[in-house]
Amino acid sequence: MTENRSVPIVFIGAGNLAVNLALALHQKGFDIVQVYSRTEEPARSLAEKINSEWTIDLEEVTTQAELYIVSLKDSALVELFPQIAKGKERALLVHTAGSISMDVWVGEATRYGVLYPMQTFSKQRIVDFKEIPFFIEANQREDVELLKSVASVLSDKVFEADSVQRRSLHLAAVFACNFTNHMYVLTADLLEKYRLPFDVMLPLIDETARKVHELPPLAAQTGPAVRNDEEVMNKHLEMLSEWPEMKEIYRLLSESIAARHHE
Amino acid sequence: MTENRSVPIVFIGAGNLAVNLALALHQKGFDIVQVYSRTEEPARSLAEKINSEWTIDLEEVTTQAELYIVSLKDSALVELFPQIAKGKERALLVHTAGSISMDVWVGEATRYGVLYPMQTFSKQRIVDFKEIPFFIEANQREDVELLKSVASVLSDKVFEADSVQRRSLHLAAVFACNFTNHMYVLTADLLEKYRLPFDVMLPLIDETARKVHELPPLAAQTGPAVRNDEEVMNKHLEMLSEWPEMKEIYRLLSESIAARHHE
Repeated sequence: MTENRSVPIVFIGAGNLAVNLALALHQKGFDIVQVYSRTEEPARSLAEKINSEWTIDLEEVTTQAELYIVSLKDSALVELFPQIAKGKERALLVHTAGSISMDVWVGEATRYGVLYPMQTFSKQRIVDFKEIPFFIEANQREDVELLKSVASVLSDKVFEADSVQRRSLHLAAVFACNFTNHMYVLTADLLEKYRLPFDVMLPLIDETARKVHELPPLAAQTGPAVRNDEEVMNKHLEMLSEWPEMKEIYRLLSESIAARHHE
Repeated sequence: MTENRSVPIVFIGAGNLAVNLALALHQKGFDIVQVYSRTEEPARSLAEKINSEWTIDLEEVTTQAELYIVSLKDSALVELFPQIAKGKERALLVHTAGSISMDVWVGEATRYGVLYPMQTFSKQRIVDFKEIPFFIEANQREDVELLKSVASVLSDKVFEADSVQRRSLHLAAVFACNFTNHMYVLTADLLEKYRLPFDVMLPLIDETARKVHELPPLAAQTGPAVRNDEEVMNKHLEMLSEWPEMKEIYRLLSESIAARHHE
C-alpha cells in the first residue's frame, strides 16, 4: 500500500467531491501536486489546505503526475477531455462521475478509468470515507488494481463496477439522496411557514433512515397514504392549497405510495 | 413522578403506535390494565407482552381506568368517539393523532386531550422514546400537567402544542418521513431491477440524514437538478422510460429542486 501513496496526483476540478476526496487523500499521506479549477478561489482554497500548487489554466497543468482525478460538472467534463488528456499519455486519467461512461476517454487517453465514491459531498461538511462505497473501472487490469489500492486506503468498501452498473447506481442515488434531501427542504419550508423549528424533525428523520437498516423500505412505510386514510390526506391537500407545487408533490407521492402498496 | 406510574391506563387500539407506546410505558412501570382492538390477534398479542387484559368489544372496556389512550386509524376514531367516551366521565381521554383536533372530544368527554409522539412506528421495530418529541394538549390545566408527567418518564422532549400547530407538524412529518421512506422504496425498486443490493445505499442514506443536523437542507442539496445538469437529467429520464410513474416523480421533483434553488 505505502508505495501507492507516492503516486503524484493532480486534481482537475475543485468542487464538493474534489475537495472531500483531496482532503482525505492528503490526510492519508498521498502527494497531491496540483489543483486545477476554472476559477481562482476554489483552486487556491483547496491548494492551501493540501499544500499543493494550483492553476486556472489547463495548459499549465503538469504532465508529470501519475494519476489525474478529473472531477468537473458533467457537461464541462466532456468538452474538456481532449485538452485534459493532452501530453499525459503515460499517466492514468480517471473521472469521478456516476453517469458518465468510461468510454468517453477512448481516443483521448491511453490509460483511463473511473473512480466513483457514491456519497453526497458538500464543502461545508467533510465526510469520513471509511464507509463510503467506491466503484472502480479502468481499461487496463493493472490500473484497476492501482485504483483499488488507492481507494482501499480511504474506504473498506471498494468494488469493481462497469459503466452500466455505475449509471444505475447513480440514478438510484438521486432518489435515495437528492430527492430525499428535497423532502427535507420542503419540510423546512413548511415549518418555516408555520414558525416551527426544523430541529424538532431530526429524531423522525434519523429514525426513518435507521429503520431501513433493519426493515425493507416497503415494510417500513407508515402514514396516511399507506393506511389509505383519505380524510387526513384531503385535509393535508387543503392545507397546501396556497402552495400548488407542494400540493402536486403531495398528491403524486401519495398516489405512488398507495399504488406501490396495494398492487 | 412515581405516583403517576400508578395511573391505570387503557389502550384503545393496538396498532404500530399503540404497541410501541404501550411497551415503553409498561417497561417504565406503568400499569396498563386493558387493551381494546377491533380484531383479536393484535389485542391479544399486545396484551400478552404487557401483562394486561384484552377485549374486542368496546362495551367491555373497563370504566375504572384513569387514562384512556385512543390510538385508532383516524376515520375509525371519529366514528367511535361517543362509544369510547361512554361511562368514563371521570377519566382523562386522549387520542394520539397528529391531524385530529382536540375538539373532537367536545360533548363526548369531560376531561380530554391529545398525546402525540411524533415518530414513525412499526411493530417489527421497537423504538427508543428518549429523543422522540411529544406534543401535548388537554382541556384542563391539571391534565396538561398529568400528560406531561407521563410523557416525561419516556422522553426528554415534551412540548405543549395546540391543534393547529400539531396539524402543521403532522403535515411536515409526512414529507420528512413518509415521503422520504417512499424515496427509499423507489430506490430499492430500481436497484432490484438492476440486480444490485439495497445495502450499498445505506451510507448515502445515513449521510443525507446526518447532513441536515449541521447544514440547512437547502445548503445540503447536491445532484444534477441543483447543478442544472441537463445532460445527466435527460439520461436519467431516458433510463426511466419503462417506468412512467417513476419518470413523472423524477421530473416533478427535479423541477421543484431547480425552482427552489434558483428562485
